[in-house]
Amino acid sequence: MGIFSEASGHAGNPVEEQDKIAKELIDRGRKVIKLSRGDPAVYFKTPKYIIDAYIKALKEGKSQYEYFYGAQELREAVAKRYRRMYGLNLDVEEDIIATNGVSESLIFLNSVLMNKGDRAVMFRPFYTLYEGLLEINHGRAIYGSYDEGDGWAIDLDHLKKALKNSKRIKYMLITNPNNPTGTVLNRKMIEEVVDIANDNDIMLVSDEIYDEIVFNGATFTSLAQIAKGTKHVILNGASKNFDSPGFRIGFMIVPGKDKISKEFKERVVKYAQMRLSVNTPAQYAVAEGMNNIKEHKRSIDHMVREIADRTNFTYKMINESRYMEAVRPNGAFYILPKLNIRDINVKDDTEFAKRLLLEANVQVTRGSGFGSKNHIRIVTLPDKKTIGEAMDRIERFCRKNNR
Amino acid sequence: MGIFSEASGHAGNPVEEQDKIAKELIDRGRKVIKLSRGDPAVYFKTPKYIIDAYIKALKEGKSQYEYFYGAQELREAVAKRYRRMYGLNLDVEEDIIATNGVSESLIFLNSVLMNKGDRAVMFRPFYTLYEGLLEINHGRAIYGSYDEGDGWAIDLDHLKKALKNSKRIKYMLITNPNNPTGTVLNRKMIEEVVDIANDNDIMLVSDEIYDEIVFNGATFTSLAQIAKGTKHVILNGASKNFDSPGFRIGFMIVPGKDKISKEFKERVVKYAQMRLSVNTPAQYAVAEGMNNIKEHKRSIDHMVREIADRTNFTYKMINESRYMEAVRPNGAFYILPKLNIRDINVKDDTEFAKRLLLEANVQVTRGSGFGSKNHIRIVTLPDKKTIGEAMDRIERFCRKNNR
Repeated sequence: MGIFSEASGHAGNPVEEQDKIAKELIDRGRKVIKLSRGDPAVYFKTPKYIIDAYIKALKEGKSQYEYFYGAQELREAVAKRYRRMYGLNLDVEEDIIATNGVSESLIFLNSVLMNKGDRAVMFRPFYTLYEGLLEINHGRAIYGSYDEGDGWAIDLDHLKKALKNSKRIKYMLITNPNNPTGTVLNRKMIEEVVDIANDNDIMLVSDEIYDEIVFNGATFTSLAQIAKGTKHVILNGASKNFDSPGFRIGFMIVPGKDKISKEFKERVVKYAQMRLSVNTPAQYAVAEGMNNIKEHKRSIDHMVREIADRTNFTYKMINESRYMEAVRPNGAFYILPKLNIRDINVKDDTEFAKRLLLEANVQVTRGSGFGSKNHIRIVTLPDKKTIGEAMDRIERFCRKNNR
Repeated sequence: MGIFSEASGHAGNPVEEQDKIAKELIDRGRKVIKLSRGDPAVYFKTPKYIIDAYIKALKEGKSQYEYFYGAQELREAVAKRYRRMYGLNLDVEEDIIATNGVSESLIFLNSVLMNKGDRAVMFRPFYTLYEGLLEINHGRAIYGSYDEGDGWAIDLDHLKKALKNSKRIKYMLITNPNNPTGTVLNRKMIEEVVDIANDNDIMLVSDEIYDEIVFNGATFTSLAQIAKGTKHVILNGASKNFDSPGFRIGFMIVPGKDKISKEFKERVVKYAQMRLSVNTPAQYAVAEGMNNIKEHKRSIDHMVREIADRTNFTYKMINESRYMEAVRPNGAFYILPKLNIRDINVKDDTEFAKRLLLEANVQVTRGSGFGSKNHIRIVTLPDKKTIGEAMDRIERFCRKNNR
């Protein structure tokens, strides 16, 4: 350890752990197919009306520090969006805090809540950053689970059992639509989770960054529509729905007016003060992104249609292989196939992902990074030709390493 | 405390603690003069060539996540700048990490180094965020001091004494040019500090965000020019020299090739992975900001000339008042007058700042936020008319409250 902190041993992001190697391969002229990062702007141009709004903000001189809560225009746009889409009445002055992406919302969440030894509930498979951001804040995870055999539905009995013997639980975190499985939780399931959170007096957090990226007939329900009596937090942002991850605009929504929710917001805002401001012109771009409903509808409809097509194609190819099988995703842009590891001559998903990059030049993320051993996460954003090529390479890699 | 973390009790930023009240006053039609936030873009238009580069990046589709180290172009521009200005040879691939402003660099620094009870040395008066960002990471400060009677020079004897009885010191942090005093450290002083750090085997950190904003004949020396044998870290960014705080582009430079410096960088980068990316198009704007030497010279020369004039004017007005006195600043854009508190009917600087805002509608920052009781920090960026008006209001406020 030497001079370094214990906490820093928990930092890192499995999604990016092979980026440096991939970069070196690319620099050496190799054609690497990256199915690791969920970056829609690589595959779909950020809508022109949003870029135009960004440029307008820059030309108007919006290069000063913004208010640490976030620009008034952005918070108003978020409030309007939530009224329009989910019937919510948010207080623009108090309930919405702009952040540097959802990652910063998660940092604030953990910073405000976690003392050493405190716990948070997350469901396996979870988004890679959840556990690391908890642990660098000295918290530890209690694992619920999404049941792969039941279409990744939440295993409620397992959850109840896990909660029974646990203390010092600060929050429970769901992701809907899910990253890495692409599952959309149905309304009844969320109601059950809300009841359990209520019974155990646990704050509920829902990461809903993909809330408009839903397909195959699934219907999205926001936690905010159901959790009226529960202390709860909604995380969202512009990266996915507004196809602009490089802008780094996220927001945290805390609708509650109860004493704890109020103090929670006050404490979050003190962390926001300590990084002074989120990128200023990007906030105005995203405000326009949300306010211009007509333009947004056009771009999101196109993007979701394409994503559905590409995801269904990936799903089909995966299940044609004897080395993998997967549950069909209905949202986001990921799929989490299970490796039939007994047929492949690798120790586990970590070795699989590492060698797949080096030998077949396909970058995926190891499932263990999501708490789901012997799975891999595949990003389903590239066009079908690229996905097809990647799946062929994966198939050849598996065959070559047939056990 | 309830469900909240102990650490979150240390969060907050004194510079911004009155922003909400100021906003309410402004919303009620009051003409508040804000001398609290060091935001050059409020007073000087961000240079057009930088805005143009930002727009170009947006038009080229730079809205994807960037590499967590920061854009290649930005890191190359930073390396070139440090070669040109300070003769440094930085490894573009390893030594430079882009951050969301210097605030995030400080967050990474403390996250990577601090275990509960560890110490860091900072000098009073220090920039407000240093202590809070240390404390939310469970560290505690050991205070050196800048000596007001000696033109805010570092009190070396006091420092040596402070170090003698202290253990578990992880780093020592200097600010040059200084915020809040505007002092520029001379070369000899930095050499002495480097010697002391070497003798005590302490990592040295220098926040040099104002390194081009130097005047009244002062000369700036970077720690990197002197600390060749010492483990050291340089913090800098685009907010001040490139007049673009709302872009949130900072960077951390770690020139050392020794084992500890190497591991330090590896750990910092793991934190960088956890927030995925810094705003992408802004990184290209700042790269151009640095690379276009001719345009930059034109804008920085103009800005520094104006800042010198305004700062010297503020200094003169302060020392004409019998309620305040100040050391003359030679850099940055702040001044930290000492209040002759025995002549003013307020308990301390906190009450002074609070009532000054409410009664005279001038927002300054209380000195205690910088570890310097009974001082106030005044931002010297506004034009002389505004500063003159503010100083008149302060003078009237003091007279009205003559003890």
